[in-house]
Amino acid sequence: MFLVEGIQEFEMAIKGKYIPIKIFIYKEIFHKYNTIKSFKNVVTFINKRVFQKLVYRKNSGGIISLFKNNSPERKLKKIIKIPNNPFILILDGIEKPGNLGAILRTADAAGVHFIILCNIKTYIFNANVIRCSLGSIFTTKIFIEEPKSIFSWLKKKKIEIVVAGFHKKKSITLYTNQFSSHLAIVLGSENKGVSDFWIEKAHKIITIPMFGHIDSLNVSQAMSIILYEIIRQRMTHFSSS
Amino acid sequence: MFLVEGIQEFEMAIKGKYIPIKIFIYKEIFHKYNTIKSFKNVVTFINKRVFQKLVYRKNSGGIISLFKNNSPERKLKKIIKIPNNPFILILDGIEKPGNLGAILRTADAAGVHFIILCNIKTYIFNANVIRCSLGSIFTTKIFIEEPKSIFSWLKKKKIEIVVAGFHKKKSITLYTNQFSSHLAIVLGSENKGVSDFWIEKAHKIITIPMFGHIDSLNVSQAMSIILYEIIRQRMTHFSSS
Repeated sequence: MFLVEGIQEFEMAIKGKYIPIKIFIYKEIFHKYNTIKSFKNVVTFINKRVFQKLVYRKNSGGIISLFKNNSPERKLKKIIKIPNNPFILILDGIEKPGNLGAILRTADAAGVHFIILCNIKTYIFNANVIRCSLGSIFTTKIFIEEPKSIFSWLKKKKIEIVVAGFHKKKSITLYTNQFSSHLAIVLGSENKGVSDFWIEKAHKIITIPMFGHIDSLNVSQAMSIILYEIIRQRMTHFSSS
Repeated sequence: MFLVEGIQEFEMAIKGKYIPIKIFIYKEIFHKYNTIKSFKNVVTFINKRVFQKLVYRKNSGGIISLFKNNSPERKLKKIIKIPNNPFILILDGIEKPGNLGAILRTADAAGVHFIILCNIKTYIFNANVIRCSLGSIFTTKIFIEEPKSIFSWLKKKKIEIVVAGFHKKKSITLYTNQFSSHLAIVLGSENKGVSDFWIEKAHKIITIPMFGHIDSLNVSQAMSIILYEIIRQRMTHFSSS
């Protein structure tokens, strides 16, 4: 089970086929009765004091819901059909819920097909993940696997592995790279970057050019830059399936 | 005056020519005596209890400093020399310190020459701006002006105004736009986008293509995507000065 604050997040959870077990409404500030009308039987009205004890955010719009975690098993073997031009994102060891949420939001916008998490350090339904992803955590296809299993699967499916990171011999600039139409992009954690496993298995290692005083980008910003360079190439070379 | 937590942020403030008035050190966790040796006369050692009362973050590394805000007047008339290929960022009405900080960090990486703020809703030396910018708030050339003054200045300097936003007739996709070598890019606030003033004055209005369930990107992520598309074009067409 997990808690969802806010109406947009509620709608995304419904879109993701999660089932609300309880919906708590604070009447004074709630206005979207149309959205919850199919779930009347699980609605409970609560007063201001109780509501304020339950919510984490200030602007939750008067709704907080308890959902059943009825997602299918998050294993790669559950994937039946791979799109023609697979665009996969692998996140290795992400620690901060806010960063995971921000990455999910951009990945949604960029039309990433699957997100695979390994060495994950946060609970995927953490309130901050939900909030920063604007609920796209519920609609994105997310898998959780060991690095080795991910690698075997990618190999079998003939998917190119591109790692965002730095290697003194192997790395090339983002903008000199031609991304494959069968692509998995790997991004590491905030502090440690990608693990040696992925550096070793990478077909290519790409770096983002930097011109300032600071020597690193925030992990979610780096992800946005890379995902959208892939989008640009895809828009130029072929239509994304 | 403003407070700076952390050693990297301290070093950036020094790089930005700000003057420390007081440096508070909590010996137990501070190790970088080399960095502060030129400022011995303003160092005060404090105990754990006082230190914990002063700091906002957990990982501040045992240093918190009080700086004099000795920055020159943040007016465009203070700019004496404009680079050959000016790359300017205008932020209109940014509200959240974290977003401003994140944008500054990426703008530093992207080598933006000047940042101009208008309708600003946050204090630029807010602790969260400093933290999320990793101190690049101190080394970036930042100006604060009224929209009208900014527009006159850009016009006089023959700088193209490109607005990130949406207009049903005028907007074009980011990737079909060829950015000018004399460029100011305008980004609006988290909730309201850019003001009508900039939509009206824009030479071009660009949008980021989106393919998901959510209809917006976080403002700092949008900025990263746009700044780095400009970088890509600059790396391909001419060297940035």
